[in-house]
Amino acid sequence: MHQPYTPRLIVEVVTADGVTGLGETYGDTKYLELARPLADRLVGHRVDDLNRLFAEADEVAVDAARVSGQVDVGGLRGVQTADKLRLSVLSALEVACLDALGKSLGLPVHALLGGKVRDAVEYSAYLFYKWAEHPAGVTAEKDDWGAAVDPAGVVEQARRFTERYGFRSFKLKGGVFPPEEEIAAVRALAAAFPGHPLRLDPNGAWSVETSLKVAKELGDVLEYLEDPTLGTPAMAEVAAGLKRAARSASDKGGGGRRVGVPLATNMCVTTFAEIKEAFTRDAVQVVLSDHHYWGGLRNTQHLAAICRTFGVGVSMHSNTHLGISLAAMTHVASTVPNLHHACDSHYPWQSEDVLTERPAFEDGTVRVSDAPGLGVELDRDRLAFLHRRWLDDDGALRDRDDAAAMRVADPGWVRPAVPRW
Amino acid sequence: MHQPYTPRLIVEVVTADGVTGLGETYGDTKYLELARPLADRLVGHRVDDLNRLFAEADEVAVDAARVSGQVDVGGLRGVQTADKLRLSVLSALEVACLDALGKSLGLPVHALLGGKVRDAVEYSAYLFYKWAEHPAGVTAEKDDWGAAVDPAGVVEQARRFTERYGFRSFKLKGGVFPPEEEIAAVRALAAAFPGHPLRLDPNGAWSVETSLKVAKELGDVLEYLEDPTLGTPAMAEVAAGLKRAARSASDKGGGGRRVGVPLATNMCVTTFAEIKEAFTRDAVQVVLSDHHYWGGLRNTQHLAAICRTFGVGVSMHSNTHLGISLAAMTHVASTVPNLHHACDSHYPWQSEDVLTERPAFEDGTVRVSDAPGLGVELDRDRLAFLHRRWLDDDGALRDRDDAAAMRVADPGWVRPAVPRW
Repeated sequence: MHQPYTPRLIVEVVTADGVTGLGETYGDTKYLELARPLADRLVGHRVDDLNRLFAEADEVAVDAARVSGQVDVGGLRGVQTADKLRLSVLSALEVACLDALGKSLGLPVHALLGGKVRDAVEYSAYLFYKWAEHPAGVTAEKDDWGAAVDPAGVVEQARRFTERYGFRSFKLKGGVFPPEEEIAAVRALAAAFPGHPLRLDPNGAWSVETSLKVAKELGDVLEYLEDPTLGTPAMAEVAAGLKRAARSASDKGGGGRRVGVPLATNMCVTTFAEIKEAFTRDAVQVVLSDHHYWGGLRNTQHLAAICRTFGVGVSMHSNTHLGISLAAMTHVASTVPNLHHACDSHYPWQSEDVLTERPAFEDGTVRVSDAPGLGVELDRDRLAFLHRRWLDDDGALRDRDDAAAMRVADPGWVRPAVPRW
Repeated sequence: MHQPYTPRLIVEVVTADGVTGLGETYGDTKYLELARPLADRLVGHRVDDLNRLFAEADEVAVDAARVSGQVDVGGLRGVQTADKLRLSVLSALEVACLDALGKSLGLPVHALLGGKVRDAVEYSAYLFYKWAEHPAGVTAEKDDWGAAVDPAGVVEQARRFTERYGFRSFKLKGGVFPPEEEIAAVRALAAAFPGHPLRLDPNGAWSVETSLKVAKELGDVLEYLEDPTLGTPAMAEVAAGLKRAARSASDKGGGGRRVGVPLATNMCVTTFAEIKEAFTRDAVQVVLSDHHYWGGLRNTQHLAAICRTFGVGVSMHSNTHLGISLAAMTHVASTVPNLHHACDSHYPWQSEDVLTERPAFEDGTVRVSDAPGLGVELDRDRLAFLHRRWLDDDGALRDRDDAAAMRVADPGWVRPAVPRW
C-alpha cells in the first residue's frame, strides 16, 4: 500500500542567458520548506559553482520538529537529520545547475561528471506485492497489472516486466508476508528466470535470526539481500554470521552451493556520517546510493569512490521519482566504473510524468543521452495540470503517508513493531 | 642532499580545434616508459572523457622490474605498484585534458571541478637542513640561502621564507640529525614564530618508541607529525600510544599542554588500496594528498571526500614540481572544503621553470586563477633549453638518485637502515 500519489518537487534554474535547467526531488512539506529559502540564497550564483552549494545549504534553518534520530521504517530512507533534508533539496538544485550548465556548454551532464564509461545503464524490475485493485474508498487510477500476492503472481509480474522492458534483474519488495512465503516467491522467480540476478528487500522487518535463516536458505539464488534487519549493529551481526557459516561450509569441503549472500542497504547507510561504522564493521557489502538524499550527482560519485576503496559494491536505490530524476540517475550511473549491479527504479510504475517525452527502457536499460544537459524537456501543460491537482486536493497530497493509505483499507491498522518476524 | 636536477615530464594535449592543454609529472625513465604508450592510446579521445582514462591506463603494460612492494625510503613516496606508476602518468594527461577543456569552454579548471570554495590557497614554507654550498664535485647552481644545520640556521631559513613569501606554516624535513637536535629546531621555530603551525617530517626514520617520545615532547607546538615511522602497523602503534597518553593525562586533571599530536602521512597511505587498513586502525589523522600519484585532480577530490567521511584531515604533499603542477595543485585545493592545513610545496626552491610567467606566493598563498584552463602558459624556449640539458647530460639526469648525490660528498655513504633512531 502506497498512497496513490507522491508529491515531487520540480526545480527550474534560469541563467542570465535564459538557459533553463531542471531538477527533481521529494516534494513533501518538509522539503518545500527548505527549497524556497535555499533557492533565494542562490539568485546570482553561477551554475558551475557547485561546491559552494553545500555551504549555502548549511545556512538554511531546519525546523527541529522535522528531524528524528530514528530510522523511519515508513519512509524507507533511514535516519532523518537536518543535513539529510538539506542535501535532499540541494540535490535538485545541483542537478538543475548541471542541466543548465550542460545546455550552456553544449555538453551532456555525464561529460560534466568526467564522462560516461558505458552507453546504457541497466535497471532492475521492481516487483511489488499488490492487489488487483485499490481498496474501496481510494480514488486512484486503476492499473492493469493484476494481483501479485503469491509466488505465481510475483512471477507473472516479473514476466510482464521482462516482456515489456527487457529487465534481467528482479527485486522483490518484501517484508509483507511471513518469510516462508517470500522465500517461496524468490524460489519461483529463480525457477522461472534461471541465472537472473534476484534481490529481496524486506525493509528491515526481520530479526537477526530470521535474516540469517533466510540468507542461508536463499544463498544460492540471491544477488544480494537488502536491509533484512534494522541498523548497522544488527546488519553487522547478520554479515558476521553469514561469514562464519560460509567458513564452516568451506571447512567441510566447500564446492557446494553458496552459503553467504551480500547484504545491501539503503537504510543503515544513507549519509556519509553512517559510513565509517558500517564499513569498519563490514556490516554491508553493497550500498544503494540515491543522489537525492546523498546530495547530488557529484556526491554520488564520491560515495562510489568510497565504496570502491573499501571493497563495497554500489547500486542505486529508487523512490517514486519522475523522468527528470531517472535521467539524472542514468547520467551519474554511466560515470561510475564500479556499478556492478542494475539500479532500482520505480519509473515503470509511474503512469504520469512532466516531460514532453518519457525516457524508455530497452533491454532493461536506459540509453545515456549525449544531448546537452540531462536531455529531457519539461511539458509545462502537464506540470500545470499536476500542480493544479496538488493545489486542489485540500492538502491531502502534501505529504506522503502510506499509513493513512493503509487505514483506508483497514481502519484499525497500526504500523507493526519491528522486527516483525 | 638532492641531486641538483630532477627530471620532470611535461605533457601537451592538442585538440582537433588546436587548443593545447598542459600537464606535468615525474620524469624518471619509469614514467617516460608509460607516457608514450598511454599517449598513443589517447589519440582521438575527447578531453572531457576523463573517467575512461583509467581503463586506458590499465591497458598499458608496466615492466615488473619497476614495481616493488616495499616502501622506498629514498623516493619518499611509499609503496611502488604498477597502478601507482600508471596513475602518476595518467595524472599529467588528466590535468592537460582539463586545461584544454577549460580553455575550450572558457572556464577555469576549478570550475570544471565544481568550483573554488576559496580564492587563494595557503602553502607552507618547506624547510630543509642544508649546507651553504654544494660539495666539491657537484656542478650545480649556487644558491644564496646559506647554511641550515642547527636550530639558528633553520629559524633563519624560516624567517627568509616569511619575509619573502609571507608563509605562516612551517614544515621541517627531518630525519637528518638525531631527534634531540630536530626537537631543538622545532622548539626554536616555536619560539621565533609563536602560534604558527609547525610540522616535522623525519621520513620514517624513527622507531615507534622514538616517535612516541618526540610526539609527546612536541605535542604543544606541532600542528602534526609527519611519517615518524614506516608502515601502517607502526603508525597505528604510535597513534594508539598517543591516544592512551592523552587519556591518561586527561584522567590526571587535563587542562595542561596538549599531549597527543595528529600523525600525517604521505608514505603509508599513498594509494586507495592502503586506505582501508590505515583508516580502520586510526593509524593516521591527516593524509597528504598528491594529485600526481593519486591519479589526478578528480581522484584528489575523491580522496578528500573519503578523508572527510572518516574524520581524517587533508593536506597536500609536494615533490620537486614546476609551475604547471603548482597551478594544478592550487586549482584542486581551492575546491576541497575540508582542506584545513596549508599545502606543502618545493616551488620556492626551484630556480627554473617552463612557464612564461611564474606563479607567485603572496601572504603565503597562491591566488586561484579564474582564467580559462590552468591559467599558465608554456615558454617553449625555456622548455627547449631544459630539454637540451637533459639530452646532453649523457643520461645522468634521467633518474633521480639522491644516494648518488650523497656519494659525491661522501664516497663511502650507504643508506642507513631504518629505523635509524
